Amino acid sequence: MKMALKEAKKAFLISEVPVGAVLVKDDVIIARGHNVVEKKQSVLRHAELEVIKKANAKQKNWRLNETTLYVTLEPCMMCLGAINLSRIKNVIFLLLDDKKSDNQRSIERKNIVTTLILHSDSKRQKEYKTMLQTFFRDQRILKKFDSE
Amino acid sequence: MKMALKEAKKAFLISEVPVGAVLVKDDVIIARGHNVVEKKQSVLRHAELEVIKKANAKQKNWRLNETTLYVTLEPCMMCLGAINLSRIKNVIFLLLDDKKSDNQRSIERKNIVTTLILHSDSKRQKEYKTMLQTFFRDQRILKKFDSE
Repeated sequence: MKMALKEAKKAFLISEVPVGAVLVKDDVIIARGHNVVEKKQSVLRHAELEVIKKANAKQKNWRLNETTLYVTLEPCMMCLGAINLSRIKNVIFLLLDDKKSDNQRSIERKNIVTTLILHSDSKRQKEYKTMLQTFFRDQRILKKFDSE
Repeated sequence: MKMALKEAKKAFLISEVPVGAVLVKDDVIIARGHNVVEKKQSVLRHAELEVIKKANAKQKNWRLNETTLYVTLEPCMMCLGAINLSRIKNVIFLLLDDKKSDNQRSIERKNIVTTLILHSDSKRQKEYKTMLQTFFRDQRILKKFDSE
């Protein structure tokens, strides 16, 4: 998760929503990545999809069986769908996405093979929450300048 | 939808699950594509994602506002998430995915901005259903050969 946070920081530094992810198999890192949606102008460039794409290319296989994805934020519907189709075994994430309702969460998880685990490292959670809040505060300030 | 079916046929001819998609804005085609998951060994190569990726590159924008996506099969969770994030206005699809439950369907649609419309052209639906059934029958026969 430390490495996923490092990736999130890379996104922060280029003014992207700070989300980072790392894919691991048998304690070895297969791929890592971060959100580059604005830089690449495509919603397909979420951190999780970057990692899946890199892992597919490396392993020459769409099946990512027996792998664990560490990601800083709870995956969105698109990413969760991709994670499930890729047969990733576990997702360990640091913070819940507060835009997602409990009902949506429970239906989504009922329909997938992947297990989702909330990583309860309160120190890192606090650190990451600060990074996210700082990012969105900065965005609001910059937007204000744009509209003046 | 005729063109989306043409794309689906391209996928069929290279032994991919036959799904095709076309993105339209103001009656002009922006992008078209088909499923290439096996060829490219990545689940990120679903028809809908191929089209979004091409449209993003063409328009140099992740926002695909005011567009309509024609797709032969009801989008999976990953594709629906990507469609919604891309702000595609409407999705017109030819066949329901019978792997999806009504409950999942209703929750998914409640959480998105995109409107989904089932295209009720019974002649084309029948034609496409035959294509899908032929594809899966062929796959089963080939699998049997592999295991012998």
